[in-house]
Amino acid sequence: MAAAVNPFSLLRGPLRVGAWATIKASKEGLCISPSHPILQNAPRFRRTMCSVGSTNNEEAIAKVAAASADSGAPTIFDKIIAKEIPSTIVYEDEKVLAFRDINPQAPVHVVVIPKSRDGLTQLGKAEERHGDILGHLLYAAKLVAEKEGIVDGFRVVINNGPAACQSVYHIHLHVLGGRQLKWPPG
Amino acid sequence: MAAAVNPFSLLRGPLRVGAWATIKASKEGLCISPSHPILQNAPRFRRTMCSVGSTNNEEAIAKVAAASADSGAPTIFDKIIAKEIPSTIVYEDEKVLAFRDINPQAPVHVVVIPKSRDGLTQLGKAEERHGDILGHLLYAAKLVAEKEGIVDGFRVVINNGPAACQSVYHIHLHVLGGRQLKWPPG
Repeated sequence: MAAAVNPFSLLRGPLRVGAWATIKASKEGLCISPSHPILQNAPRFRRTMCSVGSTNNEEAIAKVAAASADSGAPTIFDKIIAKEIPSTIVYEDEKVLAFRDINPQAPVHVVVIPKSRDGLTQLGKAEERHGDILGHLLYAAKLVAEKEGIVDGFRVVINNGPAACQSVYHIHLHVLGGRQLKWPPG
Repeated sequence: MAAAVNPFSLLRGPLRVGAWATIKASKEGLCISPSHPILQNAPRFRRTMCSVGSTNNEEAIAKVAAASADSGAPTIFDKIIAKEIPSTIVYEDEKVLAFRDINPQAPVHVVVIPKSRDGLTQLGKAEERHGDILGHLLYAAKLVAEKEGIVDGFRVVINNGPAACQSVYHIHLHVLGGRQLKWPPG
């Protein structure tokens, strides 16, 4: 079975995000409804969060996910690491796990994560002591590209914060390939 | 002065790329003319390589650059490291150099490179021994984001091969921010 990289892709009912909003998945895509009175009265929020379609909801998801970015709460990746949620694992060693993105943006689209988050909710939280795991994540991305037959043409992307569409606050590398990738990169 | 990240941006006359093609910069952008008879008679090549405009020539540049990817020849980055070509340096330490991309794709667009290439023409050439420098490159990308005031929203991109628009065969990380970055990442 495919991995649920998108934190809301396994959503069966409405999900309350802190005190701020309720997210509900539908065939039309994702609808994010403000729960907090401040947001209910904010036309800009409503326009931003509810007008996105299913193919372009990463920005909206990222904005909501950022609200609890620093909570330190477990993410869906913890359940994938614990194999409580099934995923298609492409590569695994004692430090990292790589699995297919459930919403692939290229014929090959794999997500590489550290098994221990260790404070790395995002790259922007990196300290010098994280050098080893950061280097191993990039090396693992290369191993994934080899295993997937795209080592001659692939792109690695790391999103940090809502402006870059980060939707899970557990550092992760996207490895994309199998088609001509464009410039600019988003 | 701005850095010449694009390997052809300092081009003053035609440049012969192996036996395959000649590249000529003009105000209209980049024109890549096939020199080899096989390519001269290949309509697809001509269409692909010569129809690109100045704002979207990364794919064409990357295809030509790949022809000499494994030559081990010095790249324009060696001249930037040696300060023989001026660049706007954003961050520097004993292992890495970060400077502004001369063709920025976002309000902040910085390139981070190792001062010693050490076989890393691209991420696909990484060996386990490269873990330290790979980790330090990512940590330096975070330091760059902090210095540039985009640590809450930035994207790191590594292109590998022509399918990902790699145009210089000395591993480099793009750090982009200062605007909403889209999904997919190219």
